[in-house]
Amino acid sequence: MQLRLTLQYDGTAYHGWQVQPEQATVQAVVETALATALRQRVRVLAAGRTDAGVHALGQVVAVPVDSVPDDLGRLRHSLNALLPADVVVTHVEPADDAFDPRRHASSRLYEYRIWNAPAPSPFWRRYAWHVARALDVGAMDDAAGHLIGRRDLESFRGSDPEPVRSTVRDVLESRVQAHGPLLVYRIEATAFLKHTVRNVVGTLVEVGRGVRSAGSIPALLAARDRRQAAATAPARGLTLMAVRYGRRASTC
Amino acid sequence: MQLRLTLQYDGTAYHGWQVQPEQATVQAVVETALATALRQRVRVLAAGRTDAGVHALGQVVAVPVDSVPDDLGRLRHSLNALLPADVVVTHVEPADDAFDPRRHASSRLYEYRIWNAPAPSPFWRRYAWHVARALDVGAMDDAAGHLIGRRDLESFRGSDPEPVRSTVRDVLESRVQAHGPLLVYRIEATAFLKHTVRNVVGTLVEVGRGVRSAGSIPALLAARDRRQAAATAPARGLTLMAVRYGRRASTC
Repeated sequence: MQLRLTLQYDGTAYHGWQVQPEQATVQAVVETALATALRQRVRVLAAGRTDAGVHALGQVVAVPVDSVPDDLGRLRHSLNALLPADVVVTHVEPADDAFDPRRHASSRLYEYRIWNAPAPSPFWRRYAWHVARALDVGAMDDAAGHLIGRRDLESFRGSDPEPVRSTVRDVLESRVQAHGPLLVYRIEATAFLKHTVRNVVGTLVEVGRGVRSAGSIPALLAARDRRQAAATAPARGLTLMAVRYGRRASTC
Repeated sequence: MQLRLTLQYDGTAYHGWQVQPEQATVQAVVETALATALRQRVRVLAAGRTDAGVHALGQVVAVPVDSVPDDLGRLRHSLNALLPADVVVTHVEPADDAFDPRRHASSRLYEYRIWNAPAPSPFWRRYAWHVARALDVGAMDDAAGHLIGRRDLESFRGSDPEPVRSTVRDVLESRVQAHGPLLVYRIEATAFLKHTVRNVVGTLVEVGRGVRSAGSIPALLAARDRRQAAATAPARGLTLMAVRYGRRASTC
């Protein structure tokens, strides 16, 4: 049997999700809390291995267990008492042995936040990228729209990439909205390559500043050349919002 | 001449606004940054002396200066470069010598945030009070409404009060709204007594839990007895949102 956990975390203090020697990682603190609560050593598998400084509101994790505890609400409560305050378990559900949070996910939804005002915000400093210069949100949204559909994301792929079979992904949603000085870029896709969202955001900000046009995005995608996209946006603006299962991903 | 500064701060790391020996206070870091930027020692006066752990989105401060600098945008930029990241100057404006941010304020607006969900939130942990048990928001809003008008706030006054001439204040707004699991209590009044908002919130949460009724608030106000109100809510949920000037306060 397995348990399916949904997690929220403030990634500021962590070197990302995945266990690394001598580093504080979210996976390590979750496995430590689980070992205490379940009285067995566990190794967990997450839907998305978020990078250092990236946050999550809906990370999904599978936990192999010898047996499913009777009171899952009580287990959630125990885990939250054992975890540091910046990592929280919101749901604990039973899952069968076959459940694979990574392979079975039909899509992932990320949001990237930009604080666009002359002065920074003391409240968004850990959760948004501060861009002081005024940005053209309409142009950024137009540029973002060019990503929707079946797209080769090679141009937005991290410069030190892991081997992947294909760089083509189905992008289901890609839009920029302003909520006062807070700009939110929302992107949902079947899966992501390393640093994709942050590389897209770096490029969208150049569009917002007028350095490149919204209409230049199709040629940038076609070029399949990372060097033509902008620099990677800072990790702190990025949040894994949700991982979706069981819904057949549209191919647009 | 004076400068009028508008400040935002995350109060988590500070022992409140007011300078105290051997303690980190917001006033102290602001005065240090001003002394460097203006090359003169200054003593500033704030509209509201927020308590330890309380935040601000619209604190107003008067700064006596020998002369007003030419480029106030540049001064703001310099101050933000000198200040720690949890204190930000959003506006710098000239003000005449007579300006008194405390006495001339016509009203203050505070918000108090409650995270009302079984699990805490890693993102609201510094800015909201976590109440796990379900709260009746409608009853809390009904209770809050009883505060609107000219009210004697003695029952909600801090237990170690400073001498005040009168405990009667004009409350212009007092309501509770839910934004998903985040409950926001919003109160605007001509002025506040020590701990008033946090004492009101402690009492509203008891109404939300069904421990006391919304209809009990008029009798509680009439009693003028702090011991009949609930315990003070934690400081971290409270934010000074705005200080208003020049608008004649309604007497309702």
